Amino acid sequence: MTSRTLYSLCGSDNSRPFSPHCWKTVLSLAHKGLDFEERPMAFTAIPGVENGFSKTVPILRDGDRLVKDSFEIALYLDDAYPDAPSLFNGEGGKSLARFVESWSQTTLHPAIAKFAVVDIHDILDEQDRNYFRESRTRLFGKTLEEVTANRDAEIAAFPAKLEPIRRMLGFQPFIGGESPLFADYIVFGALQWVRVISGADIFGRNDPVRDWFERCLDLHGARGRSVTAA
Amino acid sequence: MTSRTLYSLCGSDNSRPFSPHCWKTVLSLAHKGLDFEERPMAFTAIPGVENGFSKTVPILRDGDRLVKDSFEIALYLDDAYPDAPSLFNGEGGKSLARFVESWSQTTLHPAIAKFAVVDIHDILDEQDRNYFRESRTRLFGKTLEEVTANRDAEIAAFPAKLEPIRRMLGFQPFIGGESPLFADYIVFGALQWVRVISGADIFGRNDPVRDWFERCLDLHGARGRSVTAA
Repeated sequence: MTSRTLYSLCGSDNSRPFSPHCWKTVLSLAHKGLDFEERPMAFTAIPGVENGFSKTVPILRDGDRLVKDSFEIALYLDDAYPDAPSLFNGEGGKSLARFVESWSQTTLHPAIAKFAVVDIHDILDEQDRNYFRESRTRLFGKTLEEVTANRDAEIAAFPAKLEPIRRMLGFQPFIGGESPLFADYIVFGALQWVRVISGADIFGRNDPVRDWFERCLDLHGARGRSVTAA
Repeated sequence: MTSRTLYSLCGSDNSRPFSPHCWKTVLSLAHKGLDFEERPMAFTAIPGVENGFSKTVPILRDGDRLVKDSFEIALYLDDAYPDAPSLFNGEGGKSLARFVESWSQTTLHPAIAKFAVVDIHDILDEQDRNYFRESRTRLFGKTLEEVTANRDAEIAAFPAKLEPIRRMLGFQPFIGGESPLFADYIVFGALQWVRVISGADIFGRNDPVRDWFERCLDLHGARGRSVTAA
């Protein structure tokens, strides 16, 4: 029995959690060698969890503690379990991980939305579909179908957005250096999201970023690979 | 008398060193509190320095040691002067700084070239102009004027490229966190390059990235501000 519960996100199939932010936390917990029970749920079920602690997942219950937000959870885990392998390797690593998160959020996530937001909708259960369509239509100011109107072109343009990772891989095998850190899980989360919901091929030919992603899928008992690609 | 010499780059006016990579090293040395003599020189003078040690600047002579490449120099300085403030704050900071460098090199530098390569040419001395025009025409596969044909549009598109920095500044005042690290100097170098050679306004309205850049200009005795904008 574990006292740790990770609340995460799924569509109608609860064996296929897809949230990029929750995947960051799954690999963070695995990195620290901590066991946990993952409870994937619908978007609309989140407000009913832990007395409405957070509107978004991941939410981690660790004994008496509740923590939300993947970055906050990673900071918490490194504080609470200092003897397990660090997710940041020092204060500089913490600060620079915010830049990696900001890059992923402003470069990768909006691009993924433009080709995959309909795919997300389609794997949700009926109740979530209404919520998702309404909230995202409001967010984007257009219908989901309009957001993804240039789907093929967006997918074709995606490999170029990975160029900073590609160049970095000429120096080292992970963003964290010789081994992965939370910064790797940040970018992995975005690409695993694509893998689970859409299956779009977002890499170039003979792409070292694909090789890095495959290495990440194999980490920690191949936890990422345990959910098959769409 | 200092035993440290930084070989850097200038045009016909040697009081206006402009290389982004050399600016990274200027602030790295200042960060460590190390005095040094800067020797700005023409592109075509570099192969004659220190028996042809490097085809590119920065080159740092520190007593008996010669080090090239701004990242290698930063690593060297942290190793050689461990009691001075760190440029990386730990191993994670070192690894993630490679990502920041890769982002800057693949996102900012190519965009800057597209609006400023003629500006660079125009501040060079006669001998360098020939070298620069020939080598860059070969590199880009087109004339300098063709490279900058959409100059105004490239400048207008530039603020969006700074979005990862902009979002990060919602969490912390420097890429390094509460205070700057080499990662800040990497991005500063690119924007200082623009400031010295071109003077193009590359920020948005009320842009927090401009505020960060101004903070960087003020660091270490306002070393960056000592060269006025073009």
